Amino acid sequence: MATALSGMQKLLEVGTKIVAVGRNYAAHAKELGNAVPKEPVLFLKPTSSYLENGGTIEVPHPLDSLHHEVELAVVIGKKARDVPETTAMDYVGGYALALDMTAREIQSAAKSAGLPWTVAKGQDTFTPISTVVAFAREITALQIWHCSLFPEVVKGRRNLLQMLVGAIPSMVPLPKSALPDPDNVELWLKVDGEVRQKGSTKDMIFKIPYLISHISSIMTLLEGDVILTGTPPGVGPVKVGQKITAGITGLLDVHFDVAKRKRPGSV
Amino acid sequence: MATALSGMQKLLEVGTKIVAVGRNYAAHAKELGNAVPKEPVLFLKPTSSYLENGGTIEVPHPLDSLHHEVELAVVIGKKARDVPETTAMDYVGGYALALDMTAREIQSAAKSAGLPWTVAKGQDTFTPISTVVAFAREITALQIWHCSLFPEVVKGRRNLLQMLVGAIPSMVPLPKSALPDPDNVELWLKVDGEVRQKGSTKDMIFKIPYLISHISSIMTLLEGDVILTGTPPGVGPVKVGQKITAGITGLLDVHFDVAKRKRPGSV
Ligand SMILES: [Mg+2]
Ligand SMILES: [Mg+2]
Ligand SMILES: [Mg+2]
Repeated sequence: MATALSGMQKLLEVGTKIVAVGRNYAAHAKELGNAVPKEPVLFLKPTSSYLENGGTIEVPHPLDSLHHEVELAVVIGKKARDVPETTAMDYVGGYALALDMTAREIQSAAKSAGLPWTVAKGQDTFTPISTVVAFAREITALQIWHCSLFPEVVKGRRNLLQMLVGAIPSMVPLPKSALPDPDNVELWLKVDGEVRQKGSTKDMIFKIPYLISHISSIMTLLEGDVILTGTPPGVGPVKVGQKITAGITGLLDVHFDVAKRKRPGSV
Repeated sequence: MATALSGMQKLLEVGTKIVAVGRNYAAHAKELGNAVPKEPVLFLKPTSSYLENGGTIEVPHPLDSLHHEVELAVVIGKKARDVPETTAMDYVGGYALALDMTAREIQSAAKSAGLPWTVAKGQDTFTPISTVVAFAREITALQIWHCSLFPEVVKGRRNLLQMLVGAIPSMVPLPKSALPDPDNVELWLKVDGEVRQKGSTKDMIFKIPYLISHISSIMTLLEGDVILTGTPPGVGPVKVGQKITAGITGLLDVHFDVAKRKRPGSV
């Protein structure tokens, strides 16, 4: 990992994969000239590409910029294989905000040649990510167990947990204003303070329960694995020297610098 | 994972990615009608696709067969970032034989559409793999440390280790007949006893030190990560009901059944 992962480390460190969904917002598929997909476009990013909030995104030579894609990240809470949509949300351990940084020129060349997107999507620092939060319509015993397992989650949510401690294991509806519906939250991203992306997860073509069910029918999802749910329109280049801020409206925000990657051996 | 990983579990379980190299044997690139690449074609497989020796490869619906690709797997022994070719072999923790099972119809459609290979390459049981062995030209202190960390490696190599125990930390050349050069070993694969693939790693376009150096300049390689080094010619379908045997000549062999994947909910 490019920087120490301190806070979120314990949850994300156990994860072994990032399954990213492409073209999951019709308006974004169109802006890149792609058809709206009939089933989710899936690709993998390595966990070595994580970058903690406040870190520096590194642009590899000979590029001067990368494309930003702001996405809601779903963090898997327990092993999921062939789970139906009806119970899929039981496998969610939490959520985070992530950026799916993309070397668009490399991706475009790969697409034309019928080649994988790994080099365009998988480099170190290409998945900046916030700390993990457990917002949901309902807090389940599973999620509380996760909070006790991952103290950093507790730290941010101590009051909430104190409220809930007497309620285990019954289901506790939470105020939507504090913990919004993950299928209806607003994501935004700014470059040097200028809004570039703003969109709601309600515009996702494939919703979270469907994504978990579908992906789990292809590959087992394990605790700490992350699903990147796709990006709303407005993607574009962020250049060396610029700053990215992004957030889930009303819940959290993150900030990242963008710099040229130091070549091996350079000082 | 589709089956318990018993023996090899401790080494491979810590790994978070499989970086696979496509078209690394000129004769195989040609048999699929692809150009010989100027730089390595890289893609990711998830560690959830591992299948232990003796297990059953599952063919997903609606397919009746998968393509077999026998490959030498390099298991990374310690964190590698921007390592030069000259020291790249210091980061090798061991080797294994792996199959890069491929749903060729899905991959062909993905290639035509400029889409990732994840569904074609990343399903559960699509990476059958042997136990990890530590054959090398020289056993280093690093490798011995690894053997002590991973008792299953010790188990198979107890005599060797007993021989070496007095020699730490100096370099100990081993007889090439017992521990062949990883850049010059013969890989083979049979379907129902009939030879389908046989080739030497000396025909790899990009050699192991180059692959480690190159990949580590794109993404950090971590302990337990695996590089699949590409397949010699002779790939082709293996059908439901057939058996695969494969090996590294003179060193190890593996066997796998091939069956239709049971759909969720079926008995
Ligand atoms: Mg992975
Ligand atoms: Mg994306
Ligand atoms: Mg292969």
